[in-house]
Amino acid sequence: MTLREIAAWLGGTVVGRDDIEILRPAKIEEAGEGSITFLANPKYARFLAKTGASAVLVGPSLDLGSVSHPALSFVIVPDPYVAFLRILERLVPSPDPFYRGVHSTAVIAPSAKLGEGVSVGPLSSVADGVTVGAGTTIGAGVMVGKGVAIGSQCVLYDRATVYHGCRLGDRVVVHSGTVVGSDGFGFAPRPDGSYEKIPQLGIVRIEDDCEIGANCTIDRATIGETVIRRGAKIDNLVQVAHNVVIGEHTVIAAQTGISGSSKIGSYCRIAGQVGISGHVEIADRTTLLGQTGVSKSITEPGKTWFGTPQREHVRSGRIEAVLRHLPELRIEVDDLRRKLDDILRTITK
Amino acid sequence: MTLREIAAWLGGTVVGRDDIEILRPAKIEEAGEGSITFLANPKYARFLAKTGASAVLVGPSLDLGSVSHPALSFVIVPDPYVAFLRILERLVPSPDPFYRGVHSTAVIAPSAKLGEGVSVGPLSSVADGVTVGAGTTIGAGVMVGKGVAIGSQCVLYDRATVYHGCRLGDRVVVHSGTVVGSDGFGFAPRPDGSYEKIPQLGIVRIEDDCEIGANCTIDRATIGETVIRRGAKIDNLVQVAHNVVIGEHTVIAAQTGISGSSKIGSYCRIAGQVGISGHVEIADRTTLLGQTGVSKSITEPGKTWFGTPQREHVRSGRIEAVLRHLPELRIEVDDLRRKLDDILRTITK
Amino acid sequence: MTLREIAAWLGGTVVGRDDIEILRPAKIEEAGEGSITFLANPKYARFLAKTGASAVLVGPSLDLGSVSHPALSFVIVPDPYVAFLRILERLVPSPDPFYRGVHSTAVIAPSAKLGEGVSVGPLSSVADGVTVGAGTTIGAGVMVGKGVAIGSQCVLYDRATVYHGCRLGDRVVVHSGTVVGSDGFGFAPRPDGSYEKIPQLGIVRIEDDCEIGANCTIDRATIGETVIRRGAKIDNLVQVAHNVVIGEHTVIAAQTGISGSSKIGSYCRIAGQVGISGHVEIADRTTLLGQTGVSKSITEPGKTWFGTPQREHVRSGRIEAVLRHLPELRIEVDDLRRKLDDILRTITK
Repeated sequence: MTLREIAAWLGGTVVGRDDIEILRPAKIEEAGEGSITFLANPKYARFLAKTGASAVLVGPSLDLGSVSHPALSFVIVPDPYVAFLRILERLVPSPDPFYRGVHSTAVIAPSAKLGEGVSVGPLSSVADGVTVGAGTTIGAGVMVGKGVAIGSQCVLYDRATVYHGCRLGDRVVVHSGTVVGSDGFGFAPRPDGSYEKIPQLGIVRIEDDCEIGANCTIDRATIGETVIRRGAKIDNLVQVAHNVVIGEHTVIAAQTGISGSSKIGSYCRIAGQVGISGHVEIADRTTLLGQTGVSKSITEPGKTWFGTPQREHVRSGRIEAVLRHLPELRIEVDDLRRKLDDILRTITK
Repeated sequence: MTLREIAAWLGGTVVGRDDIEILRPAKIEEAGEGSITFLANPKYARFLAKTGASAVLVGPSLDLGSVSHPALSFVIVPDPYVAFLRILERLVPSPDPFYRGVHSTAVIAPSAKLGEGVSVGPLSSVADGVTVGAGTTIGAGVMVGKGVAIGSQCVLYDRATVYHGCRLGDRVVVHSGTVVGSDGFGFAPRPDGSYEKIPQLGIVRIEDDCEIGANCTIDRATIGETVIRRGAKIDNLVQVAHNVVIGEHTVIAAQTGISGSSKIGSYCRIAGQVGISGHVEIADRTTLLGQTGVSKSITEPGKTWFGTPQREHVRSGRIEAVLRHLPELRIEVDDLRRKLDDILRTITK
Repeated sequence: MTLREIAAWLGGTVVGRDDIEILRPAKIEEAGEGSITFLANPKYARFLAKTGASAVLVGPSLDLGSVSHPALSFVIVPDPYVAFLRILERLVPSPDPFYRGVHSTAVIAPSAKLGEGVSVGPLSSVADGVTVGAGTTIGAGVMVGKGVAIGSQCVLYDRATVYHGCRLGDRVVVHSGTVVGSDGFGFAPRPDGSYEKIPQLGIVRIEDDCEIGANCTIDRATIGETVIRRGAKIDNLVQVAHNVVIGEHTVIAAQTGISGSSKIGSYCRIAGQVGISGHVEIADRTTLLGQTGVSKSITEPGKTWFGTPQREHVRSGRIEAVLRHLPELRIEVDDLRRKLDDILRTITK
């Protein structure tokens, strides 16, 4: 692959010779002839002068004029690290982790329909009425319930589980141990304090291009649908309760939980261990910092929140700045009271 | 089914004709002749005058005299929404999600005893010495360890796991990915700072009518039993440590964790992401709000708690009301000090 | 087994006759001739005078001179409870929970290499290129991905999953439902607000003598390794993100989450539901109390921290002591202001 081809593929710009052949990626301090490396951290800039690499991926802010290495070519890209990983993935292909074809121990129900090029690993079960789109990969020990519809080019890693009737779009990735479509947590109290189960009759629908991490739980709706909208990315051990809607291209970090019927906007960024109460709405482009507890709706888009109960981040920082010195504030108030009492005694004397 | 039969089944009271035939449930704005609908949210009351439904499920507080629709019958029930879901479940039966019978790929150990009407799905394993009561359903990919005793009419969803020796009562539901009976987290420090495993020799016992959500972990006792008492309902991703006891009809929302040897009372309501320290006791009918951290026992029953460390809810609200304006309190105290210093200067002059 | 043999095995000291034969362990109040019991809780000391046991395990602090029971022998050990559990495990062997041998339904790829005495339970899959060391036990429904290397004397409980390429040392225990090697949560934002997946090309390496609880998620590195160092013990539902390093003999309680690239020191003790931000370092022997949120590196070893954001435990307690009475502080400040205004009126009159 020439540097020109690499730059075109990455959407980057070459500075220097672009007809050189790139054979492999390498670390900046170990790179030799024919290799491409990257500079993301300014701490490594000193290696630029002496690297043996033929080309370096750099960010747009680097001053190339300052680099005294005439033989070196550069590719300017928005994020050199990500670009390097993409090259790494392409030039050093890791072995395919999946079984290809339908393994002899997979249990495929007679009425299930597998599209072209679908793989099903060992000891997986695909129940009656399931449809799987072309090019989708199902790993080992995966359980797909009756009537589930899975789109094309999806990947279900080992031991993922999809309950009956749920629907996945195209290019959806579900990691190991995740459960899609378990019953929502709905119980009606009886007069004696015991509980009666409320039937959970809906489904989960995951739209195109979503990725769901490992050991997550996404509950089916009571009626209707729990929805993960297009392009949303969810980390490990995340809980999504019944009838929740997660907006497009929202990212949610590990161990966050969203209670029933809450609606999360699009392009939100939700950190780890956040808890969101039931029946709240969160505006688009909201950022929630780690461990935040959201108990009321957030209506204004694009703000950052922190704490339990949630506060706007800047306000939260101001409160924290005083809270940190609360023992001293307490002493100060005691001191004021003493002085005030002295004055009162002086005056009334 | 006549309306009279439906009302009797729901334990409701008919107002209007009770001999009409009910064929299907429908939304209030879409309902036609022979259909039953519900009114739970007052916002939809305006649809009552013009609905095409034959009958409406309503709550006890609705003023039926105000409804000008002579042909309409009503069934008064405590919770119209829940009643509607029950009708939905009965009149629009969803397809049975499970494989019926014992699938040819299920591995049933020779000494396991399956009661009448037990189903075991594909690729499940039932080990030596297991007993399964009549009418219990075991899904696909479920692993049941040696000597486990499961009661009658239970449901173990796909990929549930029960370690050796654990005991489940009747009508227990365990959702996908949940692990019952993993080792308690017990390690004794050695003088060199490394740890020696403390053997975990007990079991988990889950009593009748409990439901456990998806991807929970319920550890076996060190000696004796970890116990989930009758009728308790546990949401997804909940951690129950060794030797914990959870009282009857207690409900626990997602991602809550209960540390070793703690005893939770009966009829408690525990919200999501709550953390409970080890060796504490929580009185009956306690409510813990989301993300609360309980580090000390709660001895008085029926109270509501919030925060880390936990405080009574009302007190917690009062503290929060001041905390929210802490930066202004700080400024006020500065202001007081300045004024006081002015006074002192004035007086001592 | 004689008492002398038991004492030698436990590393304890006998006081009294050491040639008596010990047949079984028993509770102090139920113990008879030939049985050994333990005294850990001083509340049970009153049973010492009348127990029928032949020997008692006691701690070093008990005053044996005060015990008026001439026939009784004692073994002094550092922790009588743990010692008793070890005897219990040895003298009352519980049945082996695992299938022994390689079950006929296990899928072992042709190129997988199983060491001597390896067991693989029903419905487990061991993919191409896997190596498993001598004496390792793989339970039922376990999925081991391509090229995984597992050491000797390991135990993988039912439904554990190890993704391709990951490496486990010797004597590693992984509980049910845990996922080792899922993709790190890495996505690069595109200009339109959607996300592109960053390939996750590294592995997870778990060193010797680690134990990982149930339903944990341990993500593979982006490049390089996510590492759990020798002797670390991890409870259930713990999240370990990509490129994290957990130090030797560190213990982590349930539901804690560690974000990407953070480095945890050795001999740390981390309680439940703790959240650790990405790219921080935590010094050796740090203690983090329950629900603590660590957002900045902890550089000084051996300290105890609490709260979100984390504070040193003692300082945290002082702040809490004032916070608890914040409404009264507010009232006091109001009172001071009123008095000050009175004084000002008096003075300026």
